[in-house]
Amino acid sequence: MNKRLLSLIEWMKTNDVSFSFITNPDNVFYFTGFRSDPHERLLGVAIFPENDPFLICPQMEASDARNSGWSLDIVGYSDIDNPWELMAKQISKRSNGLQKIAVEKQHLTLERYEELTNRFPQAAFIAAEQKLNQLRLIKDEKELASLRKAAEYADLAVKAGSEAIQEGRTELEILAEIEYEMKRQGISEMSFSTMVLTGKNAASPHGTPGHTKVQRGDLVLFDLGVVYEGYCSDITRTIAFGSLSDQQQEIYDTVLKAQQAAIDAVKPGALAKDIDLAARRIIDEAGYGQFFPHRLGHGLGISVHEYPSITETSELRLEEGMVFTIEPGIYVPGVAGVRIEDDIYVAADGPELLTAFLK
Amino acid sequence: MNKRLLSLIEWMKTNDVSFSFITNPDNVFYFTGFRSDPHERLLGVAIFPENDPFLICPQMEASDARNSGWSLDIVGYSDIDNPWELMAKQISKRSNGLQKIAVEKQHLTLERYEELTNRFPQAAFIAAEQKLNQLRLIKDEKELASLRKAAEYADLAVKAGSEAIQEGRTELEILAEIEYEMKRQGISEMSFSTMVLTGKNAASPHGTPGHTKVQRGDLVLFDLGVVYEGYCSDITRTIAFGSLSDQQQEIYDTVLKAQQAAIDAVKPGALAKDIDLAARRIIDEAGYGQFFPHRLGHGLGISVHEYPSITETSELRLEEGMVFTIEPGIYVPGVAGVRIEDDIYVAADGPELLTAFLK
Repeated sequence: MNKRLLSLIEWMKTNDVSFSFITNPDNVFYFTGFRSDPHERLLGVAIFPENDPFLICPQMEASDARNSGWSLDIVGYSDIDNPWELMAKQISKRSNGLQKIAVEKQHLTLERYEELTNRFPQAAFIAAEQKLNQLRLIKDEKELASLRKAAEYADLAVKAGSEAIQEGRTELEILAEIEYEMKRQGISEMSFSTMVLTGKNAASPHGTPGHTKVQRGDLVLFDLGVVYEGYCSDITRTIAFGSLSDQQQEIYDTVLKAQQAAIDAVKPGALAKDIDLAARRIIDEAGYGQFFPHRLGHGLGISVHEYPSITETSELRLEEGMVFTIEPGIYVPGVAGVRIEDDIYVAADGPELLTAFLK
Repeated sequence: MNKRLLSLIEWMKTNDVSFSFITNPDNVFYFTGFRSDPHERLLGVAIFPENDPFLICPQMEASDARNSGWSLDIVGYSDIDNPWELMAKQISKRSNGLQKIAVEKQHLTLERYEELTNRFPQAAFIAAEQKLNQLRLIKDEKELASLRKAAEYADLAVKAGSEAIQEGRTELEILAEIEYEMKRQGISEMSFSTMVLTGKNAASPHGTPGHTKVQRGDLVLFDLGVVYEGYCSDITRTIAFGSLSDQQQEIYDTVLKAQQAAIDAVKPGALAKDIDLAARRIIDEAGYGQFFPHRLGHGLGISVHEYPSITETSELRLEEGMVFTIEPGIYVPGVAGVRIEDDIYVAADGPELLTAFLK
């Protein structure tokens, strides 16, 4: 059994949990190495304090799961089987009655919860999220290697985007060039919907790419990432096309300075809120505080947004091995939208930037 | 209030439902015209038998919701508000205690269910899915127009793919050409991950595009679709590169004949199982029955896979206004994988094919 499973089992023993059922595809990947999302079909890892776990998945995915490196039991089911019945049978072989079940309360649907409560009416349910967040928080060497590679491709994607900027080209056309280049390089999945926003659109933190054309004097905002061997990157760059007004330049410089201040504050032992505040203070002092409406950043790993949240109130103490984004932004309607985002690894001696595209 | 809401309210009255809470983004779009998926943030339509409904959404999306055509109340919340408290307050204005709540049991998470049960401990919960499926089953003229347009773009996407086939090109490179062309045409969203599979890969119903190169004598399988004004298309074509072996040709001809037989069987009043069986019989008789392991098709609309499922056991009676796919396939490992899929509208006088690319 791998270290990750052993650590969860230790937590189960300490908390008298008789069964954990993990169904969020990102967490299934974390424990099994098998990445799949069969949507309405059931996929999960069943974990016990005193017995070996098993993976339940559609039969047609069983060989993929095996090839992904999962060496323990697999319970495969066809479309005419009832997977819950198969699972209950396997559970009864491994456990004498379930008193306390740990599930992902932010993922398990009511329908699935009812399947479980019907079969185990005496069981209490607790949330597994806190423990799972804590487990995934510290990245190991192999995870870091994938995150580094994902960040390199994100740099290349922004490069492709910046080279595609031309007067009169639409956001969607530039976006097409970026994703074309990524696929040509062998990247089959972006970590979220690529954003290319120009001019007024970039001045909203909540825009979607469309038919707006790039004009001279625009700031073009790229926010994108890729998935590399199951791990995500997430970068934002805001690039000037032509010369900027004084105020646009001031906004850009303020965001860049704020971001650098936050990066400089990263080290093991620092509080997350102090990282956020290092950036926020600079933006406040420049008079743009009301135009920075979001948190400074978020954890990054198997999920593109994961624990922890880097906010001005977070008391979390940074530790070596954490990876998160630092992405301050200023959005002044009608004037400019600027956000600059990098992926940061907390190394023993301070911040290591995974993304490296010029800014 | 729109007809769709009125129909749900009628169902609520008949079934003594005091509150429906709709949170699946596809269903929210169906009732409100507002398409958004704010992930972990709450988005939902709250519907009452005797009072006006309201939409609850993040404050920063409220103006988008209004612009999408929703003219009734909007309850917006910021990241520091508790949306469940705001919602409970609005509910108490519109209802005297909730006895029976309808929710999407296949979508509502356990965490959200607990938020509701904590606030309304006396309420029973019933599944809204059956009624929602039934409502969305029959497409109106406007929906049909969007589905037609989505299908046209799917045709263009397959055309781009077929033109991109070259000896030595990888699946991902061809895929890149397709999605590039779609974005160039203004399509910002595919309805699912585009599939381009060649040779041996196409012979599995469950492949993912990668670095395999097209070779002469390959069958190249395209399975893709786009989203147009919120509605999905889904097309599969299997295209020969170079000349085929006799058995490959036989398999292709069998699938095509099976698909045509199923299409010919479509008319109001026919049973879904008879559509499936019309195709399945031909594949069985040709000796390939064991290599057609999936259902014939699925409903299509706001979701790319929706109710109904076209299976060999479905007793559903077809009605004018339904839209679904017909997609028989034969997958013989090491020999050939062929699937042919079209989107079909059930018109008063029989089938209307929305997709039209040659086959």
